[in-house]
Formats: sequence, structure tokens, C-alpha cells
Amino acid sequence: MSVPEFLPLSLQELLPKWAHFCLFVGRFVEEELGVDLEGKRVLVGLSGGVDSTALLLVLHYLSKRADFTVEAVHLDHRLRPESIDDAAFCRDLCAALSIRCAVETADVAALARERSIGLEEAGREARYKLFASLRESGPFDYVAVGHQLDDLSEDVLMRLIRGTGWPGLSGMPGFDPARGLIRPLLLLPKSTLVAFVTRLGILWREDATNADDAITRNRVRNEILPLIRRENPNFWQSVARLWKIGRIEQDYWDTLTANPCEILDNQTLKDAHQALRLRLYKSCLDAVGPGQALAETLFKLDEAWLEQKVGAVFQFPGEKTATITASGVVFGSSH
Amino acid sequence: MSVPEFLPLSLQELLPKWAHFCLFVGRFVEEELGVDLEGKRVLVGLSGGVDSTALLLVLHYLSKRADFTVEAVHLDHRLRPESIDDAAFCRDLCAALSIRCAVETADVAALARERSIGLEEAGREARYKLFASLRESGPFDYVAVGHQLDDLSEDVLMRLIRGTGWPGLSGMPGFDPARGLIRPLLLLPKSTLVAFVTRLGILWREDATNADDAITRNRVRNEILPLIRRENPNFWQSVARLWKIGRIEQDYWDTLTANPCEILDNQTLKDAHQALRLRLYKSCLDAVGPGQALAETLFKLDEAWLEQKVGAVFQFPGEKTATITASGVVFGSSH
Repeated sequence: MSVPEFLPLSLQELLPKWAHFCLFVGRFVEEELGVDLEGKRVLVGLSGGVDSTALLLVLHYLSKRADFTVEAVHLDHRLRPESIDDAAFCRDLCAALSIRCAVETADVAALARERSIGLEEAGREARYKLFASLRESGPFDYVAVGHQLDDLSEDVLMRLIRGTGWPGLSGMPGFDPARGLIRPLLLLPKSTLVAFVTRLGILWREDATNADDAITRNRVRNEILPLIRRENPNFWQSVARLWKIGRIEQDYWDTLTANPCEILDNQTLKDAHQALRLRLYKSCLDAVGPGQALAETLFKLDEAWLEQKVGAVFQFPGEKTATITASGVVFGSSH
Repeated sequence: MSVPEFLPLSLQELLPKWAHFCLFVGRFVEEELGVDLEGKRVLVGLSGGVDSTALLLVLHYLSKRADFTVEAVHLDHRLRPESIDDAAFCRDLCAALSIRCAVETADVAALARERSIGLEEAGREARYKLFASLRESGPFDYVAVGHQLDDLSEDVLMRLIRGTGWPGLSGMPGFDPARGLIRPLLLLPKSTLVAFVTRLGILWREDATNADDAITRNRVRNEILPLIRRENPNFWQSVARLWKIGRIEQDYWDTLTANPCEILDNQTLKDAHQALRLRLYKSCLDAVGPGQALAETLFKLDEAWLEQKVGAVFQFPGEKTATITASGVVFGSSH
């Protein structure tokens, strides 16, 4: 049996150390993510790996105290013959905790072929599509996923490699309001989750794709991160700190650019520092429609505005434009 | 001969491509670093490696046009028997360009033993001490050093590993007013410098310590960076972009915290977003005296201020303190 016969069912039955650990997660969700779970319905994305297993357990224990509902969903990716055992494990675990568990299947390999994308991306797409549909039909207030501090470290490195600016560089958000997504374990190292689930006597499932070096993320995880941890064994603390600063500054800039408009007049731009001007351009472009504005083009736009190159037009992805006019910078769509 | 008999002596004698390259460096110094070299005296730190060789050449060609003076200094670290050849190369190169060149020696190994520091750190210390003393006696307006984009990439990674916040994470400054230090080549990849110096037929000196894997910086350079470049061959462009954003935001925050004071009153703090409050604390602490404030302690100080824990005292490195009082946060020294 992967799930022991007698599993603690409440915070009180846990060792004090692990009860505190659960309460830490609760405080993180409330204080850092600004999410109040009381009276809410939460859907947990359960792969059967150690992260989502820990997540389900923590939220289950917290739910008894803070009065919210936890349900789980497992998506069978059908990529490995053992995936049927993953689903069985998820069912067993949920049964032991009296948690409702939906098991769905998706042909991820077919999706990857069809869309000409990688298996990892196809799997993610299938999962988040399922989460979104269940969130609506549930209905659920939040979808909780098991990303932890090791994932965040990888994410920060991937973003650095890819060339993400600030504060995006500080990593994935802990709360994504548009998708109702929360990541309660984001500042906890995987080793802590392993210790917690091990202590409960649960034999979680290993995700075999993690060993596949063909995937950039796995090369970052298996080759680059170990070298970085050799230089600084507390690298994960650096990442957690950077994430916190990033969240605060994201909120700061969001506050200052909360009212994007179709025209930024010269006076507004003159009163603004270049750092703010660049963010104002970006927020106005975001309001026009989808498509990420490149930092280089934003720099050029600002240079042109400084030189008052009236008539100059800048193209941005998503067929969006910014035009220097006599009265300011005008944003629009070129289709 | 490491230095060819006929070396171009002015921009006009260079291929257009390389003349443009020199002019790019000139614009970078003027526009990005905000440094006007006209009529100034510049001391170049010359190791004889490809970076500082390129730097000397570029500044020499620019100096004819923008009317500033270039001199060079080479410090013999006495770590390798060949170091005497490095000095001879520097003398030859400077002679060919009619540039005054001082050659000094320092027993870096002895300094490292004496101070119980690494050879790299001891070498850096000896160099910058010499630069400071020559800058005063020269006198020189600026000291130019050969850091380039590969160094900046290493620096960004080292800062990420070490846990540096934002905007420090974006890397070393291009202009350090306190030391009069400029880094004109900071956004140029080393490969470009190699192509330039090679084209001129100069056989620069290789720095043997670069291959020594005992040094963290060299492990970052020789092991971690190649893996990152495999994922994104244009990683250096990501770094250059990040550096630019970092400089702009550093200036933004410097402007907002330009008047550090001994007491931050409650009204000022109430009007400020948390992002600004954290930077205000830091700038007030910096004004008290040397010692880097830890982000964690700044977070705790802010939490205590939010909860109005009057009487709470926070200790910072350099025996500095921050105390919550009824009227605000008071900064001081505990010795």
C-alpha cells in the first residue's frame, strides 16, 4: 500500500513540527498571497508526485481549521504505462482523507503532435485547460498547484536565461487572479516536502519525465542548479528573498500604472522618470491587446519621444502600435 | 614582436567597421554612463590581456577626436614567471601609440597571505589601491578598466548566486563616481574585442589564472556560463538588457531616496508604498555609516513599523540601529 492505513486526519494528530509547517503555509497564503480561503472551495491539481501530495495533505489539514473545502483532480497524461498506477495512488490518497477526487485522461502525446509542441508544454496545456473547465463547472474559487521553492529556483534561472526583465525575473506569482491559481508551497524547499510526506509514511509517485534531459527545464534542474548550489548551498533562500522583493515591486509599479490610456500626454511623460515612462508605455500597450512588448522597442520609443520625433510609429507584437504625436504618445492597433 | 611595427594611429586608419566600433564605445561612455571625456585625463588599467588592450586602443583612437589624454598603468602581480613579459608587452604597446605607461609591482601572494584572502581578491585590492593613488597624484579624472559583457554576465550570475536584490542584481555599474571608475567596454562581448585586437595584429597576453577552477568566478565562467549559453546563445544580450533596466531603476530609486534622514516620520512612511519604505530605510541606514543592511532585517523592521511596535530596536551590520518610536523610525549608531 502506497497510502498507510492510519493517516493523521487533522492538525492535532501531527507532530508539532509538522502542524507548524502546515500553519506556515496557511499564513503564507493569507499574508503573502493575500488570499482568504475561509468558506471557499479549492481544487488541488494532484499528480501523485511528492509536491502535490504534500499540497493536498497540508490543505486538507488546514481546511479542517479554517473551514474551506478541498477537492482533487488527477489528469492521466497516458505517456507511460505506469500512469494508471499514478491515478490509483491519487484515488487511494483522497479516499484515505475523504476527499473527492476526479480522474480524467488526456492523450498528451497526440496533443503534442497535433500542436507541434513539446510533451511538457502539451501536458501543461492539457492540465490548465482541465483546471479552468473544472473551476467553472465546480465551481471552485481557487485551483491550488504544487510548485515549490526548487521549481521557483528553476523558474528564476529560466527567466534569467530567456532575458526576462524586472520584476518578472523574480519568478512565477504565488497568486494568479485571472486563473484563480494559487501556489501555497512556493517558498518551501522540496526537501521539506519530502520529509513531511515521508514522515506520514506515504509512498508518492515519481515523475519519470524529470530525468529526461531533452527538456530545457530538466537541464536547468539537473545540470545548472546543482553547480549553483555547490557555490551557495543556501541558493534557495536567495531565490525566496528575490521573489519577495519582486512581488512588492510588481505591486508598486502596478499601482503607478493602474490607469492605462490610449494617449500618454507630454506633460505626464515629462513629469515621469524614465523608469516610470517605460512602464507606462508597457501598461498602455498591454491594455490595447495581447502581445508582449520588447524592452528594446520600448527603449527606442522612449528615445524617439525624448527627441520629439513626431510621426514616428513603433510596431509591437500583436499588431499594436505606438505613435509619437505633437501632444504625446498614442497607442493603438494596426489591424 | 607582439606589437606590429605599423599600428593604425587614428580612427581614420581603421577599417570603417572598427572605426564605428570605437565611436560606439564613445557614445556609450557619453550617453549611457553620462561621462564627458573632453579635456579630461584618463588612466587605463592595462594588464596586457585582450580586454584592457582593446580598451587602451579604443580610448587612444577616441582621444584624438574628442581631445582627452590617455595614460596607462600596468601592475605586475609577480604571481607567474611570465609576468615580466606581460609588463614588456604593455610597455611596447604604449610606446607604439606614444602613450605614457607606468609599470609598478606588487607582491600579491604576500598580500594574500598577510590578509588571509584569495589571490584574485588580493590582486584586485592591489590594483585598485594603485589606481586610487595614481588618480590622486596624476591627477586623473577617470580610471578606465576593461570589464566587458562576458564579465558582466559572470557578475550577474555571481550576484544571483550570492542573493543580491534589485537593482544590484543587474550587475556592476559602468561608472562609479566615488572611485572615478569607468567601464567603457561593459556592453561589448569579449569575442568582439578579440576580433578587434586580432585585426590589428596584436598578440595580447593570456591571463593564466582564468583557467584556475579553484576560484568561484572561474567556475561560473568555465562551467556554469557555457551551460547557460547552450540554452540561449544570445544570453549576453539578455544581460545587457537587464543591465540597462537596472541602471534606469537604480537612478529612479536614488532620486526618490536622495535625502536620507535620521528619522522617517510616520506620515512619510504612511504615504509610501512598501517598496519605497524598504528603500527609504536602506538609504537612511547607509547614511549612518558603512555596513550592508540585510533584506530580511529590513522586512522585519517594516513589519514592526506596520504593527507600531514602539520601542522595538533592529540591529544592522556596522553597529547601526533602527528604532520604532511613537513618531516614526529613528536611525542611529550603537557605538
